[in-house]
Amino acid sequence: MQDARSSAQTAPAANRLRLRRLGIDTYQEPVLYLHRDCLVCHSEGFEAQSRVEIDLNGRTVVATLNVVSGDFLSPLEAGLSEAAWRLLRAAEGDVAILHHPAPLESLGHVRAKVYGRRLTAAAFDAIIADVAAGRYSDLQLAAFVTACAGDGLNPDETVALTRAMVKVGERMSWGPGLVMDKHCVGGLPGNRTTMIIVPVVAACGLRMPKTSSRAITSPAGTADTMETLAPVDLDVPQIKRVVERCGGCVVWGGAVRLSPADDVLIRVERPLDLDSQGQLVASVLSKKAAAGSTHVLIDMPVGPTAKVRSAQAAAILQHQLEHVGQAMGLHVRVALTDGLAPVGRGIGPALEARDVLSVLRREAHAPADLALRSLELAGMVLELGNVAAPGEGMAMAQGALDDGSAWTKFQEICEAQGGMREPPIAPCRHEIIATRSGSVTAIDNRRLARIAKLAGAPKTPSAGIDLHVQNGEFVERGQPLFTLHAGSPGALAYAVEYAQSQSDTVHVIEDA
Amino acid sequence: MQDARSSAQTAPAANRLRLRRLGIDTYQEPVLYLHRDCLVCHSEGFEAQSRVEIDLNGRTVVATLNVVSGDFLSPLEAGLSEAAWRLLRAAEGDVAILHHPAPLESLGHVRAKVYGRRLTAAAFDAIIADVAAGRYSDLQLAAFVTACAGDGLNPDETVALTRAMVKVGERMSWGPGLVMDKHCVGGLPGNRTTMIIVPVVAACGLRMPKTSSRAITSPAGTADTMETLAPVDLDVPQIKRVVERCGGCVVWGGAVRLSPADDVLIRVERPLDLDSQGQLVASVLSKKAAAGSTHVLIDMPVGPTAKVRSAQAAAILQHQLEHVGQAMGLHVRVALTDGLAPVGRGIGPALEARDVLSVLRREAHAPADLALRSLELAGMVLELGNVAAPGEGMAMAQGALDDGSAWTKFQEICEAQGGMREPPIAPCRHEIIATRSGSVTAIDNRRLARIAKLAGAPKTPSAGIDLHVQNGEFVERGQPLFTLHAGSPGALAYAVEYAQSQSDTVHVIEDA
Repeated sequence: MQDARSSAQTAPAANRLRLRRLGIDTYQEPVLYLHRDCLVCHSEGFEAQSRVEIDLNGRTVVATLNVVSGDFLSPLEAGLSEAAWRLLRAAEGDVAILHHPAPLESLGHVRAKVYGRRLTAAAFDAIIADVAAGRYSDLQLAAFVTACAGDGLNPDETVALTRAMVKVGERMSWGPGLVMDKHCVGGLPGNRTTMIIVPVVAACGLRMPKTSSRAITSPAGTADTMETLAPVDLDVPQIKRVVERCGGCVVWGGAVRLSPADDVLIRVERPLDLDSQGQLVASVLSKKAAAGSTHVLIDMPVGPTAKVRSAQAAAILQHQLEHVGQAMGLHVRVALTDGLAPVGRGIGPALEARDVLSVLRREAHAPADLALRSLELAGMVLELGNVAAPGEGMAMAQGALDDGSAWTKFQEICEAQGGMREPPIAPCRHEIIATRSGSVTAIDNRRLARIAKLAGAPKTPSAGIDLHVQNGEFVERGQPLFTLHAGSPGALAYAVEYAQSQSDTVHVIEDA
Repeated sequence: MQDARSSAQTAPAANRLRLRRLGIDTYQEPVLYLHRDCLVCHSEGFEAQSRVEIDLNGRTVVATLNVVSGDFLSPLEAGLSEAAWRLLRAAEGDVAILHHPAPLESLGHVRAKVYGRRLTAAAFDAIIADVAAGRYSDLQLAAFVTACAGDGLNPDETVALTRAMVKVGERMSWGPGLVMDKHCVGGLPGNRTTMIIVPVVAACGLRMPKTSSRAITSPAGTADTMETLAPVDLDVPQIKRVVERCGGCVVWGGAVRLSPADDVLIRVERPLDLDSQGQLVASVLSKKAAAGSTHVLIDMPVGPTAKVRSAQAAAILQHQLEHVGQAMGLHVRVALTDGLAPVGRGIGPALEARDVLSVLRREAHAPADLALRSLELAGMVLELGNVAAPGEGMAMAQGALDDGSAWTKFQEICEAQGGMREPPIAPCRHEIIATRSGSVTAIDNRRLARIAKLAGAPKTPSAGIDLHVQNGEFVERGQPLFTLHAGSPGALAYAVEYAQSQSDTVHVIEDA
């Protein structure tokens, strides 16, 4: 690297090009566009898909090259995608130096992992440092993610990956005293308990600075849902002010770069829709460690169509979370919960936010399952934090909900984060009805999640599904099972077509 | 799919856009560029990285979307990358219909493979049909390639993958009689025996229509090397004419779409530099089966820095090749050869072609190791084809070389393929010299290949390495070990810098 730098500083004039913002959104991958007659291409031997290091006043980005023969770019310009432009913090007219990046030695470790070998802590450090620095192309990221997926990482490797992720990010510290946290491993649509647990726990006097993620493969993450009610894109000083004032917060973790390598990996995991046990553990616990948490409750829904499908898989994952948590100096408690059906009625950011508000406001039609599960988990956090005796946490949580202190606390938090707002409502809707009368015997979470995503969630916050029935309920033929919400007629039509082709997403059996 | 088609034919006017060739070379991935104000984006809910099906007069391509906010594209146009433009065979002014592609069901099988499960033949058929049809994004291809890499495929899966690859391509047939073929599993720089074996075997009366590949991860494939001497980009009728006239040919297999899925996978394997045993077997044997071969000799160099590193790995791969060959109805014979050091002196298309010519012309300074290995393998082909008795093949091959009939045959083949030419010579060179006197004890094939690639091989045909020493040879301090050849000063400087940092690529030990 040092050699590459020094050669950059003495780069020939042909390697200096005027940057141009082409306004091409490549979804986060830095892409460089050079005209095929550009002198740098010839002198450096660059061609399509070459990786090129762009150096702007000492700030560097490695981009994938696209070679342009069209007339929208001059041979004297270096066009940049939006991601490259942002990362370089470039301004129109800036002149950058282009050269070959140093060979990416850490790819050798990725290859070893692909071939099934075990990696050392030093290998993970090298890979994650390069990932966080943006030196991996999307293809290379995809290979790493795929090689680690399933059970590609053993416990020691998972600890090493977690530590490597913490090393490359920011760390928050809160001084003496307990710092409570919770996390749901996901896979259960609408399971938006965090936004109820945080105000309950904070109202009971424990500190709970919650950094949440956006959706990876699900229709909504807690950060996506919270964002429909208040800003979540806070930096570290802003978060500290909110927590000092309110004792809790619900913000997006990515904005504070707690685990920047994880954020890079997520951009590839998302379109691939792959889950990895080791990466899941590293992703969760690296963010908890970096967030300065001392006690972490993990909500793990188990069910045949949840992310964790069996008691056996749950036991393995629980063990990994506890093992890695201990290695990271965290008190981790895992709560296995019912993953048979969605919790609440909404699936998608705005629809889930509506359910949360309805519970906190103690409205008569509030989803009872969401309220119950939130109070159970809040009770466990209160016990984990020693403000409630064993077995008494849930009653304390119920008290904070019933006396309105949790709702008051939630409004305080929203105001402190930048101001509370109402969630948006989708312009396009379509009801899916029961094609026969009978009892609902199964609800397929994965298909519901897929339909909600086809409808536009989470990128369109108002999009998703409003579920009208529960497991065991009797429905009449023609009765609405769920309503699709979408931001555009095209997205709605697409989701409806798929929903209609999967008629047993909500399984109804005629009563004998 | 049928639903998607019929809905496309009744697509609203907003889904019809004028195609524009943007002249962006994305290295084969079809990319679609739409302005963010384009109506299709809003009505269909498309956003960056969405997969979009483009339908032009019934020909369809699935492309990855980049959303443009710049002014080089109008909201009424659909910009296409070069790959998308070529696949659609579009013309300026054509109007295409854009819509969501049908959900890619076969991705479920890829995910199952990532999680370590075994796939059925039907699963491979589904994946490979989608891959050949261009429905996979590069990220999805990378996940599939990575999941199959190493020993990700068992023998039955490899047979299934091979059959699936043959099904989606063209097949050649040669009528009754033997059709000889050979293949080298690679990993040994400069091992360009095919271009000597084919004229020798054809001169001895056997039919040998050889389709070769371009380099995947090496500095040159046989097709790249042959192309410096004659056209290799022939279609099926042209190949048949050459073989009828000469009894043999050396052409590029990709031009005849013998295994189009393999060609798509290679575009991802190349930048990832990953090898996969199952994919290697499927890639080789699907092309042999599709090419109509009956008897195949596989040259497998074994050595610590060759592609196959140990006798144990060789035995496993040999078994897989024989097992899958038998299942495909091919007579496969595997020849384990010495993979300790490069064969010949040149590494890179033009430099390797020079070595081949020198052997065929029986020049005094011709590389003896290349001649010897070519004659051994040609002898095995002659024995496999029953024109030579066991143990007498090599003598027959030697005869065809010595009496000039092989050289005459080679010239005939080049002329029949479109005309013989001289290989190009690189404009930029640099000698790497010995830093001490002593004996050459090891030559690192992988590093040599890497240096040759950094110098520009195979995309720059004249680029590569000219090796001046052999294992066991005594060298004086200051004596040239090898010469780097490059097409540009930048590529040369880059390769030289790397070569100098890896001082033991050619390992010299001072004599005691």
